[in-house]
Amino acid sequence: MTTQPNGQPDPLPSWNEGDAKQSIVDFVRRTTTEGSSEFVPLHERIALFDNDGTLWVEQPMYTQLAFVIADVKRLAPAHPEWQTNEPFRSVLEDDMAGVAASGAIGIMKLLGATQTGISTTEFAQAVSDWIESARHPRFKRPYTECVYQPMLELMRYLRANGFKTYIVTGGGTEFVRPWAPQTYGVPVEQIVGSSLKTTFEMRDGQPVLIRTPEIYLMDDGLGKPVGIHQFIGAQPIAAFGNSDGDLQMLEWTAAGGGARLILIVHHTDAEREYAYDTQTPFGRLDKALQTAKARGWTVVDMKRDWKTIFSE
Amino acid sequence: MTTQPNGQPDPLPSWNEGDAKQSIVDFVRRTTTEGSSEFVPLHERIALFDNDGTLWVEQPMYTQLAFVIADVKRLAPAHPEWQTNEPFRSVLEDDMAGVAASGAIGIMKLLGATQTGISTTEFAQAVSDWIESARHPRFKRPYTECVYQPMLELMRYLRANGFKTYIVTGGGTEFVRPWAPQTYGVPVEQIVGSSLKTTFEMRDGQPVLIRTPEIYLMDDGLGKPVGIHQFIGAQPIAAFGNSDGDLQMLEWTAAGGGARLILIVHHTDAEREYAYDTQTPFGRLDKALQTAKARGWTVVDMKRDWKTIFSE
Repeated sequence: MTTQPNGQPDPLPSWNEGDAKQSIVDFVRRTTTEGSSEFVPLHERIALFDNDGTLWVEQPMYTQLAFVIADVKRLAPAHPEWQTNEPFRSVLEDDMAGVAASGAIGIMKLLGATQTGISTTEFAQAVSDWIESARHPRFKRPYTECVYQPMLELMRYLRANGFKTYIVTGGGTEFVRPWAPQTYGVPVEQIVGSSLKTTFEMRDGQPVLIRTPEIYLMDDGLGKPVGIHQFIGAQPIAAFGNSDGDLQMLEWTAAGGGARLILIVHHTDAEREYAYDTQTPFGRLDKALQTAKARGWTVVDMKRDWKTIFSE
Repeated sequence: MTTQPNGQPDPLPSWNEGDAKQSIVDFVRRTTTEGSSEFVPLHERIALFDNDGTLWVEQPMYTQLAFVIADVKRLAPAHPEWQTNEPFRSVLEDDMAGVAASGAIGIMKLLGATQTGISTTEFAQAVSDWIESARHPRFKRPYTECVYQPMLELMRYLRANGFKTYIVTGGGTEFVRPWAPQTYGVPVEQIVGSSLKTTFEMRDGQPVLIRTPEIYLMDDGLGKPVGIHQFIGAQPIAAFGNSDGDLQMLEWTAAGGGARLILIVHHTDAEREYAYDTQTPFGRLDKALQTAKARGWTVVDMKRDWKTIFSE
């Protein structure tokens, strides 16, 4: 482990020295040093992390989409109407750009058509089974090992300094809950995501919640502040994202007085991971990057700022 | 402070000795004693409290209803259609039974028609202002002092034993958040309630969430397990309620293996508070009481089991 000038172990060893790392360390020092004019009491130290593209890989497609595609193909023979209805048609023709064009709502439609009518418990089991067996097509390892080591260090560093870390994802809450606590050290009640409506029923004398095809919350873009306020209520002071779908979360976090850390991960490393921003079907980064530059938010250049990409 | 036979101070001094108190103490001992076959690890110690009628007074009407009624009357001249539409008509005629008959959805309609189009921040301020000035019509004290001392002790006792305490209320999340942290010691993110949809907007360059009249979640009856699963995710092991609107929350908590504490507060004390169950417009208790008896859940007889009612 590298050490800092003061002899303490470096809490962010996978980050190269530079503006991004410095802005993180400065923010933590300013908000946690008693007597500092920007000191923040413990219960107000709330940090939000987007998931896809911020904590783990979102290329060549969102992981949850890989999960649902197999189900769509399996069920397609019973649904001839899918041959002409989007985004089903695109899935069946392996047209990922077409699927991407349908947006988060399109993905929720796929989910709604396949993974509903079952209980939340059954769905959690299906997710657990899949996440254990699936492998990323390029990196040939479980998706839960395609998470960014520098971001894991950042989460741990913040928690070690009294921050409560939340995941705020456009992906499904129920998709993330089964594996995120172990992968990120974030408990299930600190995962805010998109969701379908559920209904309470008694089955075999036991109460269950059944997943319906109706969308409850689209926790993406304009929906992220809605989810943040619904589930957390308090004002966050740090937020980490990587795409235009995170812009409103970042704006919401930046509002109000006091110290803030607003950070965008810019994917610039085609060799070790992927390089993309304005021209990608998943995780498009355009307006949020312009806003970051205009407002002086921290932008991570993955290639330059990260010593290592993936956790071992 | 009274002491227990073992010389320790009694954690529940406002509870008379009896089956109800004993079931609480036994449950905590069994779930927190290492080596016990029913030991529950810290992060699984989740306890849910209904609010109206369980933590504070809900007679002669839900407190939130008193808050909204003044607004309906103030705005009525601009809404002639309210003279014939329920539940507005009942409000304008001071027909509380009629209002009650409209149920939780009726109350959300009143809320939606009056306290929307404003930001969540403005609404929180309106709640804070009202709760500070309003007085309970019978007890002539702030509503936040019409909370039950035995339940405050129970919450503290559970937290002292590593339980995470949540409020799961049919009332509005946004109505409860401004005062509950101070009154109950429960942080805003552990308040699960009913809510309206909000939309993200920029006003004067600042991001705000605007309250719409559309209902997002009715966290009552069948909706309580939905809210619990949405906001908490993990399996609760203790739940406290007082009405049929809590039945599904209690059933949801009772499901699964391991020790459970399921408790109903039965209002039996007309002298010190109120006596009601099957014949009341607010907080009707019928099926949940039958279920409690059939399944051996703990039933608190307020008159017999509580030494004192209100906090000082």
